[in-house]
Amino acid sequence: MWVKKDLLGLDDLTKEEIEFILATAESFKEVSSRSIKKVPALRGKTVVNLFYEPSTRTRVSFEVAAKRLSADVINISTETSSVRKGETLIDTGRNIQALNTDIIVIRHNCSGAALMLARHVDICVVNAGDGWHEHPTQALLDIFTLKEKFGKIDGLKVSIVGDIAHSRVARSNIWGLTKLGAKVTVCAPEMLIPVGIEQMNVRVTNDINDALKDADAVNVLRMQFERDAGGAFPKQLEYFKNFGITKERLKNAKKDIMIMHPGPLNRGVEIASDVADGDNSVILEQVTNGIAVRMAVLFLVAQARDKNSN
Amino acid sequence: MWVKKDLLGLDDLTKEEIEFILATAESFKEVSSRSIKKVPALRGKTVVNLFYEPSTRTRVSFEVAAKRLSADVINISTETSSVRKGETLIDTGRNIQALNTDIIVIRHNCSGAALMLARHVDICVVNAGDGWHEHPTQALLDIFTLKEKFGKIDGLKVSIVGDIAHSRVARSNIWGLTKLGAKVTVCAPEMLIPVGIEQMNVRVTNDINDALKDADAVNVLRMQFERDAGGAFPKQLEYFKNFGITKERLKNAKKDIMIMHPGPLNRGVEIASDVADGDNSVILEQVTNGIAVRMAVLFLVAQARDKNSN
Amino acid sequence: MWVKKDLLGLDDLTKEEIEFILATAESFKEVSSRSIKKVPALRGKTVVNLFYEPSTRTRVSFEVAAKRLSADVINISTETSSVRKGETLIDTGRNIQALNTDIIVIRHNCSGAALMLARHVDICVVNAGDGWHEHPTQALLDIFTLKEKFGKIDGLKVSIVGDIAHSRVARSNIWGLTKLGAKVTVCAPEMLIPVGIEQMNVRVTNDINDALKDADAVNVLRMQFERDAGGAFPKQLEYFKNFGITKERLKNAKKDIMIMHPGPLNRGVEIASDVADGDNSVILEQVTNGIAVRMAVLFLVAQARDKNSN
Repeated sequence: MWVKKDLLGLDDLTKEEIEFILATAESFKEVSSRSIKKVPALRGKTVVNLFYEPSTRTRVSFEVAAKRLSADVINISTETSSVRKGETLIDTGRNIQALNTDIIVIRHNCSGAALMLARHVDICVVNAGDGWHEHPTQALLDIFTLKEKFGKIDGLKVSIVGDIAHSRVARSNIWGLTKLGAKVTVCAPEMLIPVGIEQMNVRVTNDINDALKDADAVNVLRMQFERDAGGAFPKQLEYFKNFGITKERLKNAKKDIMIMHPGPLNRGVEIASDVADGDNSVILEQVTNGIAVRMAVLFLVAQARDKNSN
Repeated sequence: MWVKKDLLGLDDLTKEEIEFILATAESFKEVSSRSIKKVPALRGKTVVNLFYEPSTRTRVSFEVAAKRLSADVINISTETSSVRKGETLIDTGRNIQALNTDIIVIRHNCSGAALMLARHVDICVVNAGDGWHEHPTQALLDIFTLKEKFGKIDGLKVSIVGDIAHSRVARSNIWGLTKLGAKVTVCAPEMLIPVGIEQMNVRVTNDINDALKDADAVNVLRMQFERDAGGAFPKQLEYFKNFGITKERLKNAKKDIMIMHPGPLNRGVEIASDVADGDNSVILEQVTNGIAVRMAVLFLVAQARDKNSN
Repeated sequence: MWVKKDLLGLDDLTKEEIEFILATAESFKEVSSRSIKKVPALRGKTVVNLFYEPSTRTRVSFEVAAKRLSADVINISTETSSVRKGETLIDTGRNIQALNTDIIVIRHNCSGAALMLARHVDICVVNAGDGWHEHPTQALLDIFTLKEKFGKIDGLKVSIVGDIAHSRVARSNIWGLTKLGAKVTVCAPEMLIPVGIEQMNVRVTNDINDALKDADAVNVLRMQFERDAGGAFPKQLEYFKNFGITKERLKNAKKDIMIMHPGPLNRGVEIASDVADGDNSVILEQVTNGIAVRMAVLFLVAQARDKNSN
């Protein structure tokens, strides 16, 4: 059962709550394969995509999910928003709430933004990525995809490779996967491993071959070179040489190792093209599952709020 | 009864027309508190938001209002529009009309833009702010909020504080309020009072305490420092010291003085945070009422046009 | 009958296919004159407008058309898209497909982009303009408008005036019109006539009077001075003097010569204002017909894909 009006992160959730979202997503997945891909679950409700960072992929996925639930969708991006006029996030949130809207999907560059917003509004808040903190729906769709293939998460060996230090995707995955009993390894160059990460119950390695060996799945993070301010990043070719996922490297991995990536791909940087497009890749299935997971999340938080207010 | 295909400003309207919009808005307000916030009033009609200035608040309010009426909504902002290619406003309007759309909601930086557009198209035009001229739906929602609290407008004492010279919100409020019998005071530093404003049937003062004393409501305008080109504006702290609405200043005002603000707030500039969030503030109710008022306006102009064309 | 999942250009189509689209558009045209302008043809389907170049006119026309068919519409423009993050067009297309969407309407600055995309996705692709190559829906609406007025295309004399060299509108019109039996003349300054254009079965002239004489219709292209990088363009006034369509020039043309323009207009550059607004102009009817043609195209490709996948 789900009783929360918000989805802020997987750190907050119990194993049971995560499993309940996954089960709900499973039942919604079928909707997108119908000829008429629409259910009336959120008809007459309004979902606001409030994006302080550009992210077409996540915005579009939430927008499609909301529309398949028959919600009205309003897109706000900071490029044209009142934020430019100096309004605080809390004021913006309260104003959106005052429009009698139902759910805010927020992407923000500051860790904790979704939580702060959720504390100041009565409507639902769904975290679509807050700084380096969490990106819960991405992790949920990753876990959903793993579960779809392997039947269960408990005991799975999952390696996450890439810039762990600045990755909300890594953090949400670690919280979710470990709660469900997976064994998580993180792998990156030394400078991209955050201090104290071992306390999150993960194994750390700087050796890509070590990360791939025995892994049931590898989640390859995007190297966001455009965000590197301090020169901490290796050069692209150097990164590919030392950490890129290639057919050659996969020879020593399990034959059916599952290859995941949150997108967008840097082909030839963190992953070779033939691996991204190969038989082990589930990258596009992740995208498809993102719709089901987000439909489930939007539906569950809205339903919980309706019950609470009755 | 309402027979006009356009809403251009409150200067054009009779007392009866304004009251008819307010009464219609009252009946629409209930829709937004339903679980399924939707009525089929504008189903199969197309509303185009044509914004030559960025204004997320107003655009989103109109978009939500139109969608609650089941209209299709198309957003056009000049950042990506043909306007960049040098098309005239009239040509843009005629093209939008040629798409068999029904209503253009226009925000423009030139006074008179909505009127000019309305003269050249047969479809409905709703002014969402034209230069320093009018912002009729903002004034209507302000008046709606006043009426909701005080039961009537006739005889109310309303003070408008801030940059009167460059404020379409002030102008529309003055026209609307005085028609309905309110006594309006405007208060600002000398340089922000337009010449000849007394002819609009308002009292003028440069003394904030004078403006607050005896007032039933004070409408605090946003200081748009980002628009100050000529250095006519006082410094922010200086403005707050001399005109900012603070708890201290309100001690000499009526106990239940209503505090209004069109948003977005400059906390600590034109208004203190504890006043904006205090018991007398109706700032968020104004936002809520904006939906009802805009639903009423969209519905009435569309209905009038349908009747005229029959 | 229509069996293609994509509309890439008129060069690919047979005479019969073009006529089938036109006939379908005719039946859809009536929808936009109803009071409730909506049919459920694409209910539960998702149309994605993927625009790599800004084009409000075309985007809005497709968006209105899709919504009149009851489709959900997602707008993606490169200003905020993952394209900035270096994703390839094919990856973007596959990701959009993985969302279980149905149709991508693509505008791209590279010739062949729509074709490349169509080869890599199973969902429908509609070309909304690719580089200097094709803009098939614009040509279809031009031809639809011609047919509506003249009853048939066979034997019509159509002159296209303007920057033929860089015009996808010209190219698509030439392919479509000649297939349907029209006699096409192109007219431009020497530098704006592409080498080898005669092989497209058109007559070439640099003399505007020659182009107007005997023509049943003239399609006046927009001079896109903003795109002139190499200084190949004449000055605006010089162009108007030598090629502008004026009342004076039309005196020697057929009395009922039809004046077309794809918009947006440069009044006083390629066309005089009184001609653009005169009795012979069908410029706004072209815009109206664009909705009918785009509804037909969206409907036909979606239907063909549904049939193929059954």
